[in-house]
Amino acid sequence: MLFKATEIFDQIRRGLGEGTHPGDLLELLDPLDDEEKGKLLRLLSDREAALLIQEMEQFDQVSLFRLLGSDRASTILREMASDDAVDLLGELLPHETAELLELVDEDGDEFSGLLKYPEESAGGIMTTEFISLPAELPVEEAIARLREIAPEAETIYYVFVVDSENRLTGVLSLRDLIAAPDGTPLRAIMRRNVISVNAALDQEEVARIVSRYDLLAVPVVDDEDYLLGIITVDDVIDVLEQEATEDIYRMAGAGEVTGMDFMEAPVHRIAWHRTPWLVICLLGGLFSGSIIGVFENTLQSILVLAVFIPVIMDMGGNVSTQSSTIFVRGIATGEIGADDLWRYFTREVRVGLLMGLIFGLFIALAAFIWQGSPVLGFVVGISMFATVALATLIGSLVPVIFHKLNIDPAITSGPLVTTIKDITGLLIYFGMATLFLDYLR
Amino acid sequence: MLFKATEIFDQIRRGLGEGTHPGDLLELLDPLDDEEKGKLLRLLSDREAALLIQEMEQFDQVSLFRLLGSDRASTILREMASDDAVDLLGELLPHETAELLELVDEDGDEFSGLLKYPEESAGGIMTTEFISLPAELPVEEAIARLREIAPEAETIYYVFVVDSENRLTGVLSLRDLIAAPDGTPLRAIMRRNVISVNAALDQEEVARIVSRYDLLAVPVVDDEDYLLGIITVDDVIDVLEQEATEDIYRMAGAGEVTGMDFMEAPVHRIAWHRTPWLVICLLGGLFSGSIIGVFENTLQSILVLAVFIPVIMDMGGNVSTQSSTIFVRGIATGEIGADDLWRYFTREVRVGLLMGLIFGLFIALAAFIWQGSPVLGFVVGISMFATVALATLIGSLVPVIFHKLNIDPAITSGPLVTTIKDITGLLIYFGMATLFLDYLR
Repeated sequence: MLFKATEIFDQIRRGLGEGTHPGDLLELLDPLDDEEKGKLLRLLSDREAALLIQEMEQFDQVSLFRLLGSDRASTILREMASDDAVDLLGELLPHETAELLELVDEDGDEFSGLLKYPEESAGGIMTTEFISLPAELPVEEAIARLREIAPEAETIYYVFVVDSENRLTGVLSLRDLIAAPDGTPLRAIMRRNVISVNAALDQEEVARIVSRYDLLAVPVVDDEDYLLGIITVDDVIDVLEQEATEDIYRMAGAGEVTGMDFMEAPVHRIAWHRTPWLVICLLGGLFSGSIIGVFENTLQSILVLAVFIPVIMDMGGNVSTQSSTIFVRGIATGEIGADDLWRYFTREVRVGLLMGLIFGLFIALAAFIWQGSPVLGFVVGISMFATVALATLIGSLVPVIFHKLNIDPAITSGPLVTTIKDITGLLIYFGMATLFLDYLR
Repeated sequence: MLFKATEIFDQIRRGLGEGTHPGDLLELLDPLDDEEKGKLLRLLSDREAALLIQEMEQFDQVSLFRLLGSDRASTILREMASDDAVDLLGELLPHETAELLELVDEDGDEFSGLLKYPEESAGGIMTTEFISLPAELPVEEAIARLREIAPEAETIYYVFVVDSENRLTGVLSLRDLIAAPDGTPLRAIMRRNVISVNAALDQEEVARIVSRYDLLAVPVVDDEDYLLGIITVDDVIDVLEQEATEDIYRMAGAGEVTGMDFMEAPVHRIAWHRTPWLVICLLGGLFSGSIIGVFENTLQSILVLAVFIPVIMDMGGNVSTQSSTIFVRGIATGEIGADDLWRYFTREVRVGLLMGLIFGLFIALAAFIWQGSPVLGFVVGISMFATVALATLIGSLVPVIFHKLNIDPAITSGPLVTTIKDITGLLIYFGMATLFLDYLR
């Protein structure tokens, strides 16, 4: 074991020296247990350890930091990118965070400044390692400064120009800078229409702006336009992936086990996270069943009615899921804007009416041929039409309402919509059957 | 109208001159019809028109290009980024593409070279406007060349170093370049471990690589390592968004109306795209219903059995959707790797058994209390246990099999899994009830 750890240590050292991406070196650590990982990290320099830890999952970072002890943890923390360091600090227990903040002294203020922003806001994901220069600086001096600061900064491809009070007034790309003749002050070549985001803006909005304008980084400002930090495009990609996963999981009611890799989380915790949704689903199912109970006499007389319960339930479920899904994704990508809600809704209703018509006719014919009763065909057909049309309406209306109430519409496409469409579908079906009972017998 | 168009023209000219993002100027065109848009574009320079057209949706690009006529279209095409130009050419009819390719003469070869790659491969999304320099060039000459090429290139933040045969041998960031002392040959400072992608690689894989290594651009090579083009991070973001949308739509069986904005597509075409899924769902529902038909005698004796049909169907549907969703997203984000398939599957089965146990006990108790029959409670409980466990198994096994067969597993989480779990669920339920019929009466 000792031999293996030494060999792994050598491989990691060599890899980092050769510029291999630290993320690729992480798998070398897989055969080691936590304690051995801790020992190995102690042998690396702060910078090397920081590079590796930055690439780990947050729950691994936390357990390693605890193993390393707060003195060493604080020196590694200082070498980490400020956004990664703050994310990690946010995962620790409050007294651990406080202890580390004291130890990192001068960086401590910076970190506690960042920690005050909500985790999913622009302020929460920004880094403070950006480059800002005064407007009067000539181009060649700016380039000289860049050469100095380059190793520290998160990106040197944008240089932000600030006034004497650190207020953001312009932006330059490195491209603008190297293309300009010597002696030109930054003021003369900077772009003044800077696209920036407020520190309080939700990370999903930030991602949409960076993606829309094809930026490599976006500056973050406070309400008075003071430059606070930047968000780089690689973090934006992470946000987009994370938000899409969140939406997809929520739509299926499959709660993510937070702070844990899905493949590592214990089975009982996964089951536990999926349970809330299923409890609502169970109660909804029982309630829908009680509708059938109410119409026991109708079912008793025309037993064949039971045969069409699955198709009515399944079709209602599918069309309502389609409508909710399109809304949830449309909102996430911006394809459905705030002004489009009413239009989306009315269009979905028309789609629902059309599909209801098609499938109502189809099932009416199928029921008539299968069971030989034209009245049954009529009842099943009308029920299918009404169920499909209503399920589309419910599947689009419920998410719109939740969106208006500022609740993530992704959570509605699961049990809630299922239950409502089941109840309405079964009510219509058995209601119709009861109405035409004399002709069905 | 004439007055309005002139005013819009002035606003666009001014906006482009001031460096406003062309995407933001597009909405100025909204009040104009296609013909007026065409007239306005004719008044702009090729460069200005190209900037605007690049930001449009592809179906808008196609109709405008037809309006402009092939002569003007070809001069605008020459000003567009090669990846955008090729995407547009791919959307036109074959004879239109051929005509334009002839007119753009020297760029034509480049475009037809790009057109041969599948649309969703690395070759299909790459641009040929990259910077490659010979390994022996000294740093200061490299910077001088960059200053010249800058306006043409898609990104100047990476410089690719090639040997005499145009084979990719190294990469330099602009950052490395400005930090190096004059006189150094590129060979001495370039990184040799270049992360590159083959032109045939699927765009989703490309996106995963760029995201994993936090790249601003990735070079595209052929089988012999010849440098063909680059893919920039802004295109990667588009790929990620597009792939997530595709997965989400497929999971809901809501086919996208391709080549058209969702909010603009005619209602009957939207309905038409959702129909295939629903037809399968309808047939599946009828088939599930026929299971109930088979057990007509059992149902006749114990009518209350019908009351529990919805809850068994809904619960099975929900747990199978959860399992499929986690698999589809896990594969997309790479959280579930190729080696993890079997482990994912066995873990899901254990989750399913556990949840089956919980909800089986719960519903058994509920059925007993509600209907006062311990045997009914037993039958419903066992059926719920088996249905939930089996639905989890089906919801995880079917996508794994499809993935193994290289078919997108996202399409399975809809009607296919629904139908299988409905049939097994109803079979178990009515099978159990028939078995215990004497005790239920």
